[in-house]
Amino acid sequence: MTKTTSLRPGATIGILGGGQLARMLAKAGARLGLRAHVFSPAADDSAFEVCAARTLAAFEDQAALAAFAAAVDVVTYEFENVPAETAAFLEAHSVVRPNPRVLALTQDRLTEKNFVRGLGIETAPFENVESVDMLTAAAAGLGRPSILKTRRFGYDGKGQIMLREGADLAGVFQSLGGAPCVLEGFVPFAREVSVVAARGADGGFRAYDVCENVHENHILALTVAPARICAQTAAAAVEMARKIAEASDYVGVIAVEMFVVEDAGGERLVVNEIAPRVHNSGHWTLDGAVTSQFEQHMRAVAGWPLGSTHRHGARVEMRNLIGDEVEKWPELLAEEGACLHLYGKKETRPGRKMGHVTRVIAED
Amino acid sequence: MTKTTSLRPGATIGILGGGQLARMLAKAGARLGLRAHVFSPAADDSAFEVCAARTLAAFEDQAALAAFAAAVDVVTYEFENVPAETAAFLEAHSVVRPNPRVLALTQDRLTEKNFVRGLGIETAPFENVESVDMLTAAAAGLGRPSILKTRRFGYDGKGQIMLREGADLAGVFQSLGGAPCVLEGFVPFAREVSVVAARGADGGFRAYDVCENVHENHILALTVAPARICAQTAAAAVEMARKIAEASDYVGVIAVEMFVVEDAGGERLVVNEIAPRVHNSGHWTLDGAVTSQFEQHMRAVAGWPLGSTHRHGARVEMRNLIGDEVEKWPELLAEEGACLHLYGKKETRPGRKMGHVTRVIAED
Repeated sequence: MTKTTSLRPGATIGILGGGQLARMLAKAGARLGLRAHVFSPAADDSAFEVCAARTLAAFEDQAALAAFAAAVDVVTYEFENVPAETAAFLEAHSVVRPNPRVLALTQDRLTEKNFVRGLGIETAPFENVESVDMLTAAAAGLGRPSILKTRRFGYDGKGQIMLREGADLAGVFQSLGGAPCVLEGFVPFAREVSVVAARGADGGFRAYDVCENVHENHILALTVAPARICAQTAAAAVEMARKIAEASDYVGVIAVEMFVVEDAGGERLVVNEIAPRVHNSGHWTLDGAVTSQFEQHMRAVAGWPLGSTHRHGARVEMRNLIGDEVEKWPELLAEEGACLHLYGKKETRPGRKMGHVTRVIAED
Repeated sequence: MTKTTSLRPGATIGILGGGQLARMLAKAGARLGLRAHVFSPAADDSAFEVCAARTLAAFEDQAALAAFAAAVDVVTYEFENVPAETAAFLEAHSVVRPNPRVLALTQDRLTEKNFVRGLGIETAPFENVESVDMLTAAAAGLGRPSILKTRRFGYDGKGQIMLREGADLAGVFQSLGGAPCVLEGFVPFAREVSVVAARGADGGFRAYDVCENVHENHILALTVAPARICAQTAAAAVEMARKIAEASDYVGVIAVEMFVVEDAGGERLVVNEIAPRVHNSGHWTLDGAVTSQFEQHMRAVAGWPLGSTHRHGARVEMRNLIGDEVEKWPELLAEEGACLHLYGKKETRPGRKMGHVTRVIAED
C-alpha cells in the first residue's frame, strides 16, 4: 500500500466490470488523461473497446487480480455485486474507491436498510424474512400489498414479487429460491426521485439536481432533471445523500433512490435504495451538466477536486433505449438537438439497456 | 468496393493517425456505438488507448493497409499529410472519407490557393517560388513584409519565414531547404477567424458559429466563439466554407481559416488555409455545442445525418495547453466551470499540444 491516492494525469484507473457504466467511465477518464484498465469476465463487454488495458478473467482469479492490482493506481467498480473476496483481495493490494465496506453495506438489502435507518433516515417499513413462518408474520404486520425482495443480487425488478391479498406465501417464498429476503411495506409514493452526488477523497461533496425517475416494467425508462419537488424537499434529499456518503466514508459517485410521499404535512422522503456507483439516473449529466457523473467519479477516485454540477438548460430529459427501442437510432440521430448514446452491445435482448438519448430543453 | 457507405451502429471506422484528434474522434464514435480502428506508425500514440482495434505500422506498409481496409467499414484521417499512395491504396480497397482528392488539394499550398481563387474566393496575394530567381521576382511584386512558406508539410509555423526589407533572399530560400514554396503578400488583418463545418454524405451542410483565433508563436493559443464580426461577415464566411466543401465533394468536418480585414468598405474575408479534418479551433464544441466536431465528423463519415451545431452559453472559450502549460492541470481541475481535456501524451515538449481547457460563459 505504498501507492499514492492523489494521482497524476497518465495514471491508470482499474475498473471492475465491463458494461456501459465502465465504458462511459473509461471515456471520461481518458478526457482527463487517465488510462482505464478494465477487468471483466465477459469477452464481448463493450468497455473493452475504449480502454487502454484489458484483463479478461473471472473475479475469483487471484493471479489475474494480483496482476491487475499491480498494473493500476486505484481500483473502482461499475457494479455493487463485486464478490466480497475480490474486493478484500484488491484492497490488500491496491487502493479501492469507494471503499469495499460500502459494497458489503449495499449488497444486502437488510444491512442497507438498517444502515439508512441508523442515520435517522426513513425507509419503507420492512421485516427480515428467512422462512415461510417469518414471511407469514411479516405479511401480517406490514399488510398488503407489500413486496418481497431477495436480500442479495436483485436489480431491474429481478428477485422481487408483489404480495397481494390471498397470495400463497409458501409458494411466493419458494419462487425466490427460498433465499433470505426482506418484506417491504407498500409506500404510496407520488413520484420517484434520485440524488446523484459525489464525495471527494478530501471530503468535498457535490450533488447534481435531484432528478425524477419513471420506471416501466421495473426498469428505468425516463429521468427528468430537475424533479418536480419543492426546494426544501430537494435540499433534504441532498442532505440525506450527504449523510449516507459521510457515514460510509464514501469516495466517488453515489446514487440514492427515494420515494416522494405527499401527505397533509407536504412532501416526505423515503429512501428506497443506495447504488455505490455511477447510476442510470445520472446519465443526463453527460450532455446536461458541466461535469458528467462519469468524469466526477473519475475525479473523486483519482483524489482530485470535484467538478461543477451546474445544469445546462431549463430541464434535461434522459430516455433509456431498452431492447428493441434501440432500433429507433436513425430517427434519434436525425432529431434536432437529441443526443444519442449507444453502448456498443453486440446483441439486443428484451429488457437490455442498449443506449439512451438526452434532450436539453433550453426553456420551459 | 462492395462496402456500404451508410453504416449501422457497431460498424468500424478506420482512422489514420493516432494523435489527439484521432483520440477524440475514437471517443466520439464510441458514444454512437461505432468502433474505432486506429492506424499509426507511432507506438505511444495516445489514440491507441481509447480504440477497439489497433494497427501499428508504417503508412507505406501495404500488407498492413490491406488488412486495415478489410477490417474497417470506412476510412478517415486526422491529418492532411497522409501520403498520396496510402490514400490511393485505401481508396481502392475501402471507402475513404473525406475523399483523397481533398488531400491532394490541401497538401500543396499552391494547389490549394489556386482552387480557392478558382471559386471566386479571395486569398492573400501569392506567387509560386521554385528558385531564388523566382523568389526575387515574387518579392519585387508582392513587397515586404511577405511570407515564404514551403508548399508542403508546413504546420504550426514550421516551414515558413517572414521576408523583411534587406533579407538575403538566397539564404532564406536555402534555409527552407530549397523546397518549392509560395510567397504570400502580407495581409493587414484585424483578426483571424475560422469556420468549422461539416458536409454529410447526403450533401447536407452545417456550420458551427464562426470563431475567432489567437495564435502565439504560430500556434493556436485561444479560440472564442462566436467571433467578434458582423452578422453579414459571419454569413459570408460560412458560405465560403460551404462553397469549398461542395466544390470538393467533401464528406466530414472541414475547417477554413480566414483573415478579417477591416477597411473603408467594412469587413472583408481572405481565406488563409483549409484543413480537411477536425480542427483545433473546433475543440470548444466538445463542451460548448450540442454536437461536438468529433461526433459530427463521425456522423458524416458514417453516412448519418449531421447533428445540431447549436452553441451553449453566450460565449465559449478554448485555450490550448502547450508544452509546460499542462502543469497548470491542478488549478484548472479546481476552477469552477472549467472543462479540462488532457491528451494522454507521455512526454511534454515545448510547442507540443498537451491538452486544452474550455469555459462556457453563460452571460456576457
